[in-house]
Amino acid sequence: MERKEIAIIGTGPAGISAAINAAIRHKSFYLFGNERLSDKVSKSEEIANVPGMGIVDGKTLNESLMNHMKQLNIEITPKRVTGIYDMGDYFTILCDQEMFEVESVLIAGGVESSRQVVNEQAFLGRGVSYCATCDGNLYKGKTIAVVCDNEEMEEEVEYLAKIVDKMYYYPLFAHSKFEDCERLKAPIKEIQGGFKVSKIILNNQEEKEVDGVFFLKASNAANVLLNGLEMNQGHVVVDREMKTNMKGVFAAGDCVGRPYQLTKAMGEGNIAMHSIFTYLNEKRKGK
Amino acid sequence: MERKEIAIIGTGPAGISAAINAAIRHKSFYLFGNERLSDKVSKSEEIANVPGMGIVDGKTLNESLMNHMKQLNIEITPKRVTGIYDMGDYFTILCDQEMFEVESVLIAGGVESSRQVVNEQAFLGRGVSYCATCDGNLYKGKTIAVVCDNEEMEEEVEYLAKIVDKMYYYPLFAHSKFEDCERLKAPIKEIQGGFKVSKIILNNQEEKEVDGVFFLKASNAANVLLNGLEMNQGHVVVDREMKTNMKGVFAAGDCVGRPYQLTKAMGEGNIAMHSIFTYLNEKRKGK
Repeated sequence: MERKEIAIIGTGPAGISAAINAAIRHKSFYLFGNERLSDKVSKSEEIANVPGMGIVDGKTLNESLMNHMKQLNIEITPKRVTGIYDMGDYFTILCDQEMFEVESVLIAGGVESSRQVVNEQAFLGRGVSYCATCDGNLYKGKTIAVVCDNEEMEEEVEYLAKIVDKMYYYPLFAHSKFEDCERLKAPIKEIQGGFKVSKIILNNQEEKEVDGVFFLKASNAANVLLNGLEMNQGHVVVDREMKTNMKGVFAAGDCVGRPYQLTKAMGEGNIAMHSIFTYLNEKRKGK
Repeated sequence: MERKEIAIIGTGPAGISAAINAAIRHKSFYLFGNERLSDKVSKSEEIANVPGMGIVDGKTLNESLMNHMKQLNIEITPKRVTGIYDMGDYFTILCDQEMFEVESVLIAGGVESSRQVVNEQAFLGRGVSYCATCDGNLYKGKTIAVVCDNEEMEEEVEYLAKIVDKMYYYPLFAHSKFEDCERLKAPIKEIQGGFKVSKIILNNQEEKEVDGVFFLKASNAANVLLNGLEMNQGHVVVDREMKTNMKGVFAAGDCVGRPYQLTKAMGEGNIAMHSIFTYLNEKRKGK
């Protein structure tokens, strides 16, 4: 497998800004994300504070970003990253069951639209999963609950429904099309169990016995992707150079904190990529 | 005098980004700088890494920024700030002999093109001056050295020449037009004296007896403008919210450190202005 220098995770303004700089400096990199770039950007009614762009709608800004990327021949790898593994000298990026190797990682996945549930993190790998393809088969003939935050991933909900014996489903978006299962009447508040998950408690105090809970999210929380990453109140902790607590791992954009602003994210993507250039350069010199 | 909420010092990408956000939020502010915005931007041959702008020349980007500011009716106060004074609850901004009052300050003046001379800071106010209009008359009939880093300020050199008895001059730019004085053959390396300045030492070891030294710079170092501002290796020290060590004073752009990048500066201007919104809001609440 070809090992590239950089993985940029996220095609929002931070990831795009970073990718632009990587392309100009002729680095080898993956840009994981959505070929439509960012829905959060493209669906904005008016954006007036990206310097030089004037007052535009989100669609126009999104097109400008796409054109800019085309000018620089930047390609997107349209995959959702489900895990990042620190291999010592390099990182393995997992997209469901596909693997990629890189020397450095920039996390620019934005903030989660949904909050974590009580004990979600605690039961990770012991009944809590973020990947239908990876873990679905473990629940053959069992009972699971599934939370899904975006329409495009509903086919994974259907896939799980075919495997398991019983499924409780709670979509976090309007107009869910998948009906062939029992809908939960309220959001999940808490997960309980012993070594493994045994039940969920809903906001309406209802309880359901389950063997597993799947959270299918367009972007996963950074510390779910990468074990050991330091977080504070839901944000990745970074210094002024956008370095995280883990060597070779950088973060930028909404995921590192407020203000949730396009221009701030672009600026941080720029800084982060320049820090990565320095990191790769020092790595070459054996520092 | 009308006291405004914010003074933004500098019309580079950080200052412009900040001003755009201040305008959108209907804040009252001064934007001190150059009506041509930034020569560093407009004279760039190619800029490829401002997301959404594509690959452009500096002149085009500068025009886009000007148009954006016009759309938002942002006015520039075309004055050079020569001092910032902390008055406890507000700040006085001095532009030569004109004064402005504000509640908060954003320093976005870029980095100095020239390094400071040995003892320059030590003799500030005791023979070292940055303002011909303010201090020129103190040197009537005396001997001074003048360093000037930009063509536009050479009229201030001429003004000083008419006041003093003898002037040594060292322009830091090509094609200086003012000839009616003795040119120094090398840059000033060091300033010496007792309580007040008494001589300068040049890079070629030559010494000249002088009563004062004027540094006429397009933008002054931040700690020269504002006494007590924490600096590190020539950069203003800020936290991730772009706060300096002084309450109500924020900084963004090249003056806070590398990478010296347009997009980074724009992002920092955005963050700084949002921190100022919070600061002003908390001030209103008496926090």
